[in-house]
Amino acid sequence: MKLLLLNGPNLNLLGKREPGIYGDRSFEEFLHALRKHYPDHDLDHFQSNVEGELVNALQAADGLYVGVVFNAGGYTHTSVALRDCIAAIKVPVIEVHISNVLKREEFRHTSLIGGVCLGTVSGLGLDGYRLAVDHLVNHVG
Amino acid sequence: MKLLLLNGPNLNLLGKREPGIYGDRSFEEFLHALRKHYPDHDLDHFQSNVEGELVNALQAADGLYVGVVFNAGGYTHTSVALRDCIAAIKVPVIEVHISNVLKREEFRHTSLIGGVCLGTVSGLGLDGYRLAVDHLVNHVG
Amino acid sequence: MKLLLLNGPNLNLLGKREPGIYGDRSFEEFLHALRKHYPDHDLDHFQSNVEGELVNALQAADGLYVGVVFNAGGYTHTSVALRDCIAAIKVPVIEVHISNVLKREEFRHTSLIGGVCLGTVSGLGLDGYRLAVDHLVNHVG
Amino acid sequence: MKLLLLNGPNLNLLGKREPGIYGDRSFEEFLHALRKHYPDHDLDHFQSNVEGELVNALQAADGLYVGVVFNAGGYTHTSVALRDCIAAIKVPVIEVHISNVLKREEFRHTSLIGGVCLGTVSGLGLDGYRLAVDHLVNHVG
Amino acid sequence: MKLLLLNGPNLNLLGKREPGIYGDRSFEEFLHALRKHYPDHDLDHFQSNVEGELVNALQAADGLYVGVVFNAGGYTHTSVALRDCIAAIKVPVIEVHISNVLKREEFRHTSLIGGVCLGTVSGLGLDGYRLAVDHLVNHVG
Amino acid sequence: MKLLLLNGPNLNLLGKREPGIYGDRSFEEFLHALRKHYPDHDLDHFQSNVEGELVNALQAADGLYVGVVFNAGGYTHTSVALRDCIAAIKVPVIEVHISNVLKREEFRHTSLIGGVCLGTVSGLGLDGYRLAVDHLVNHVG
Amino acid sequence: MKLLLLNGPNLNLLGKREPGIYGDRSFEEFLHALRKHYPDHDLDHFQSNVEGELVNALQAADGLYVGVVFNAGGYTHTSVALRDCIAAIKVPVIEVHISNVLKREEFRHTSLIGGVCLGTVSGLGLDGYRLAVDHLVNHVG
Amino acid sequence: MKLLLLNGPNLNLLGKREPGIYGDRSFEEFLHALRKHYPDHDLDHFQSNVEGELVNALQAADGLYVGVVFNAGGYTHTSVALRDCIAAIKVPVIEVHISNVLKREEFRHTSLIGGVCLGTVSGLGLDGYRLAVDHLVNHVG
Amino acid sequence: MKLLLLNGPNLNLLGKREPGIYGDRSFEEFLHALRKHYPDHDLDHFQSNVEGELVNALQAADGLYVGVVFNAGGYTHTSVALRDCIAAIKVPVIEVHISNVLKREEFRHTSLIGGVCLGTVSGLGLDGYRLAVDHLVNHVG
Amino acid sequence: MKLLLLNGPNLNLLGKREPGIYGDRSFEEFLHALRKHYPDHDLDHFQSNVEGELVNALQAADGLYVGVVFNAGGYTHTSVALRDCIAAIKVPVIEVHISNVLKREEFRHTSLIGGVCLGTVSGLGLDGYRLAVDHLVNHVG
Amino acid sequence: MKLLLLNGPNLNLLGKREPGIYGDRSFEEFLHALRKHYPDHDLDHFQSNVEGELVNALQAADGLYVGVVFNAGGYTHTSVALRDCIAAIKVPVIEVHISNVLKREEFRHTSLIGGVCLGTVSGLGLDGYRLAVDHLVNHVG
Amino acid sequence: MKLLLLNGPNLNLLGKREPGIYGDRSFEEFLHALRKHYPDHDLDHFQSNVEGELVNALQAADGLYVGVVFNAGGYTHTSVALRDCIAAIKVPVIEVHISNVLKREEFRHTSLIGGVCLGTVSGLGLDGYRLAVDHLVNHVG
Repeated sequence: MKLLLLNGPNLNLLGKREPGIYGDRSFEEFLHALRKHYPDHDLDHFQSNVEGELVNALQAADGLYVGVVFNAGGYTHTSVALRDCIAAIKVPVIEVHISNVLKREEFRHTSLIGGVCLGTVSGLGLDGYRLAVDHLVNHVG
Repeated sequence: MKLLLLNGPNLNLLGKREPGIYGDRSFEEFLHALRKHYPDHDLDHFQSNVEGELVNALQAADGLYVGVVFNAGGYTHTSVALRDCIAAIKVPVIEVHISNVLKREEFRHTSLIGGVCLGTVSGLGLDGYRLAVDHLVNHVG
Repeated sequence: MKLLLLNGPNLNLLGKREPGIYGDRSFEEFLHALRKHYPDHDLDHFQSNVEGELVNALQAADGLYVGVVFNAGGYTHTSVALRDCIAAIKVPVIEVHISNVLKREEFRHTSLIGGVCLGTVSGLGLDGYRLAVDHLVNHVG
Repeated sequence: MKLLLLNGPNLNLLGKREPGIYGDRSFEEFLHALRKHYPDHDLDHFQSNVEGELVNALQAADGLYVGVVFNAGGYTHTSVALRDCIAAIKVPVIEVHISNVLKREEFRHTSLIGGVCLGTVSGLGLDGYRLAVDHLVNHVG
Repeated sequence: MKLLLLNGPNLNLLGKREPGIYGDRSFEEFLHALRKHYPDHDLDHFQSNVEGELVNALQAADGLYVGVVFNAGGYTHTSVALRDCIAAIKVPVIEVHISNVLKREEFRHTSLIGGVCLGTVSGLGLDGYRLAVDHLVNHVG
Repeated sequence: MKLLLLNGPNLNLLGKREPGIYGDRSFEEFLHALRKHYPDHDLDHFQSNVEGELVNALQAADGLYVGVVFNAGGYTHTSVALRDCIAAIKVPVIEVHISNVLKREEFRHTSLIGGVCLGTVSGLGLDGYRLAVDHLVNHVG
Repeated sequence: MKLLLLNGPNLNLLGKREPGIYGDRSFEEFLHALRKHYPDHDLDHFQSNVEGELVNALQAADGLYVGVVFNAGGYTHTSVALRDCIAAIKVPVIEVHISNVLKREEFRHTSLIGGVCLGTVSGLGLDGYRLAVDHLVNHVG
Repeated sequence: MKLLLLNGPNLNLLGKREPGIYGDRSFEEFLHALRKHYPDHDLDHFQSNVEGELVNALQAADGLYVGVVFNAGGYTHTSVALRDCIAAIKVPVIEVHISNVLKREEFRHTSLIGGVCLGTVSGLGLDGYRLAVDHLVNHVG
Repeated sequence: MKLLLLNGPNLNLLGKREPGIYGDRSFEEFLHALRKHYPDHDLDHFQSNVEGELVNALQAADGLYVGVVFNAGGYTHTSVALRDCIAAIKVPVIEVHISNVLKREEFRHTSLIGGVCLGTVSGLGLDGYRLAVDHLVNHVG
Repeated sequence: MKLLLLNGPNLNLLGKREPGIYGDRSFEEFLHALRKHYPDHDLDHFQSNVEGELVNALQAADGLYVGVVFNAGGYTHTSVALRDCIAAIKVPVIEVHISNVLKREEFRHTSLIGGVCLGTVSGLGLDGYRLAVDHLVNHVG
Repeated sequence: MKLLLLNGPNLNLLGKREPGIYGDRSFEEFLHALRKHYPDHDLDHFQSNVEGELVNALQAADGLYVGVVFNAGGYTHTSVALRDCIAAIKVPVIEVHISNVLKREEFRHTSLIGGVCLGTVSGLGLDGYRLAVDHLVNHVG
Repeated sequence: MKLLLLNGPNLNLLGKREPGIYGDRSFEEFLHALRKHYPDHDLDHFQSNVEGELVNALQAADGLYVGVVFNAGGYTHTSVALRDCIAAIKVPVIEVHISNVLKREEFRHTSLIGGVCLGTVSGLGLDGYRLAVDHLVNHVG
């Protein structure tokens, strides 16, 4: 059973970027621990700062993975292209945000992609990825 | 370790109300299974259709529980009183929605309480309560 | 054949409150005359100033009555909880307003509950309750 | 005692147009039955697709009828000219809509003419015309 | 030198309609006096309640009159067709309103046609027509 | 195979009106050439400045034509009556605009009728009518 | 001379809740001192978290008190029911806020009840209650 | 009979400022001609770039003049102080604009002072002052 | 202990201007009585219709007075310059309005200066100045 | 004579993606047929999911092609960069949409690029590309 | 070569006002250093808190200076009078802000005067004045 | 001391694109002259039309350069990803626009990135880059 963890712009800076908001742990460290937690599953990871490459990755994921955990970063609030892509593919996608977006600037309060995802986990830190994986493993895959 | 599962208006109808949106399982059945899953924790449950009784319940929860999982139902989008209450108490609260509110009417796309909660789980069905409990048990409690 | 006439906040003041807008007849006097008009039907009446008690009353009405005539008063414009409740129950509900809400403040021009009711009668005074009852008796019950 | 039933654009298609919304009964059939119900009253009927002809009809109705039951169709949401006309004449006008406009597109949720009518009956099908007539007969005429 | 005084919907009711706002003098009386005031000019008058007939009248006025004084009534705020027509013809048009539209409902505060007219006279009663005629006679014709 | 070309307000001025925007060719000249291009089809033409007459023409077209090419002019942005009519009839309608409405005033950027038409051709001059006819002939009729 | 001090949701937490905003003095302590200040007046106090119970309290206050000092808390910004109640009763009501609401979130900048109260005192801490009482004692009672 | 012509900011530049919009005639030249036209009336003139000095001038005009012709320039769209002043004094004020403000930027389409003036003359050049004077002389003074 | 009472535009008309809204007492009379009430304090008064002179007065008050009671009149809703000034000085300022601004036009419902003042007293007539002075004397000075 | 058909994000999924909206034919099949239809013209095709690569392609097209037929997909509603590019190049661009965007979500009702294109064809399926090519071949090339 | 540095309301407080935002250096100190930097140019300085005096200063600057560096302070966001003045004069004006206005309250994000200035320098502290002077000296004067 | 000049979409067309707005000088020519002006500094340059490559370039600049001068072109108004990136890195960034964006379309009046940059220089042509470099060299580096 294969799952994709997909990260959008600036999430490669995790652990370095604004630690007051995002914490000081890199995504690689977190992923290492997460894979130990789910030894029977393949947890792939891809990150890109380019909107179109995220579209490409989602299209390629269709048929290959049983679920996608997707943190679209700043594209969450602006990308109709990503919304169209998630609506077009069949693999279920769960939207994740590390910080609680409702505590931040108003333009972060709307998500263009949330309405075509299965659901959203927001504000629970990196643990949000684990919860999304757990839901896919137990209820979807 | 004690946790409170708090449900707002109309969630007593779960299993009967609009099953296309909310599923056909009652909250009691779900809670029974959930308690088995966490045998070492006390999972209390309270439901009310009255906004002010939910305020009362949250105030009373402070100091008694290590965390609250709260589905405010329709009050999510309209209650400044609940927002003020969550901001005033110290116990962490996770907002849960069974359905994906972003797939529904536009007035459901804003949450008055989300910005004072720890985070939100939305659109993952009753499993959202389990994920919120799991986060509180592992990362907060 | 049983019908429920349900009144929201401040409608207990009818006859005393702003007679220029609402007239000087109490609801009880009106109800007495209305029951005479429909001797073969049970016309129950309940009033509350508490939003959640109106939710309770609507939930309890499901299965018990063939129709509800509902004047939600000030909650008309603010209550998602009442909207969700009416959408969740099967008994048909007709929204009634004594005054013509479109002649008054702009925040009264939108109804959160109207879109889940069967229809609306507005501005025709207490006679609006009679017309709603008449429709339920002849076309629904 | 004379009453005018006035219908705006596309209501001549009743019975043929979008039966899922408007039903499959023509206005003529309905009117025939209604006249039987009120044998002592003259119930005239006029329909036009032209906004200005509806203005003409309303102006002409003043002094001639004791009341007008008016379904302005699509002009409900756009016609200041009809609003001005109803405000200028003395005969009371009740606004009627066959469908529940609050269940439909958002531009149908506002009525420019409602605020100058006596009141509104909406969403109760053709029976709405009967209720409006009944109110005029019993409380106005 | 020929001028057209063009009146839109409900202005045929002048003297009868809402005298508190529009005064109790009919347009014919006023026109009689006005013609005496300008004995050397032809002052034609046309009124219609039908938007398209006003479009027709404006198109026909092009080339025939040196100026048009136009009170579009309720179409002022809603008619793109009249705006397009005035923009398409060469004869100068002055917009007139009898009442001060800025003292009335907010939807009367915008004029779709004002931006393609030469200018506007508003709130000065029937005398506004005289001032507009005077301007055309002295500065345009 | 019969098609209707239907033109709204001010399109009778084509060739004379604002040639910088609409060109200097009259619709009749264009139609003459178009008919030569489609010798096997009946291409009828009707123009009116009156909104309700356009409603009448569309209602009458139902059953008589296999398609309608419709330039609603200024009514495009304001007419719910035309929208309701197109939704009510079965003959497919293609919306055409000679100029690129998105290059013009903001109130021209919304079309009330576009959402109930088959599609739209905008900004391609009179050739837009030809393309719409061509689509109807090849893909609909 | 009897006055009612009426407090809405979460004001029972005063002294404990967000002391940075609301101070660390309980309402009871403050009330004790205030009563000493006005030994010749009855200063009653009632608090509830339930919107409808506040409506009940205001209705009951009519005729019993010469004035009400009302801090509606979070219901200030959302309750049409409280607004309707204050408009319906005759006893004068002064709106009080402990904190300066204009320094806080934007949804706190509007008051639904302010427009039907006598006036407002905001941002002057618990002393605002004293000033409101003082005004009622000297200028109203 | 005394009238005041009151000009706001930048109108001292008339004849020099943006002649494409305002023409190349100075206000003094125009005033000279206007006074000849009304030899029996005192036409005073005052101009200031300072909002408060215009308030002062309007207050001082009360009781001294039978009417004021006021071009508030840029303060038209922003000054509540001028609006309050005009509402507070008894002398009738006519608002004048030289250019057609509806042809210009959107922020010029609203007038804060228009709703408390007698009426408005806009877009008719300096002749607008003459028309306003003429109305005051014939219908008010 | 010195306090400044600062009044903005048109407040010099008090007693004469719109007595239905502002009462018929001049500020001087009121001030005379107020000074008697606080014999141990210096109560200075300054009024100006010029926004910039009010800025000057506030800057000059810093260091000289222990508090300012400020009724900014119409500048309340439009002056960023006054807001910036109050934010820049250290002396506490209380905003006062004689009338209840929430009962009046919608543009009066927002205060640009309220968010940088200590607090606001509104709708309690001239007594609002006394309450503000009383608060400064007892709680600030 | 060379033309470029340029497709934006997710249009590589055509035939697979949401066939209810976009049909079940791939773009390659359609292109094959289209090229047969225009044997004397070079019809190049390029697709990318990356916004900046579409900018690159449009810049490169300038001088090389006589026209571009462009379906910008989701970037239609969000890309100022594409708008700037089309405005900067000289080759005419026609905007095409397969589905009728006015039948879909509201954020699809605005096009950032439409105002700098020659025109738009929308809602006519893949045939829209043919019509755009036909216009370029006959009227532009 | 003469340049004017023009400062609006509260900028006389520089060095004292909110040093966290504006720094602790007075404008005079800065100006002294700046003049040394441009020994061959006359750098005049004027400050006023009165909007109309700034209008006066700008009008007077026309023809006298080769450029103006203007920090309009709080009038930036509210003054149509200043905008009109800058549009009316020929001397080029550069808008300067010491702080980065986009980091502050939302009402500071719009500039009414920016669109008629040559350009803007914002957020670079007092050095912004130097850069504006440098541009005028090298590229305009 | 190393500085990065970073250019976004379509700025590679400089000198060719809309010379009326952007001038006819290529960025390379300008850069050549600028480097001569600052012989002791390394002025690197990078341009891309791809949003994500600009994110990459900014991330890579952190630690390598003492400052970045950034013209984000069309992404200025739409890119949350670039905003997040600038907020996440430590190197100071100055936003530059060649044209005065406030003179152009309204969607260009907001900058998503300005609020996380040090400041902005806009409307001063290519000289804006020089001023930004000059500020970094003298006040930051």
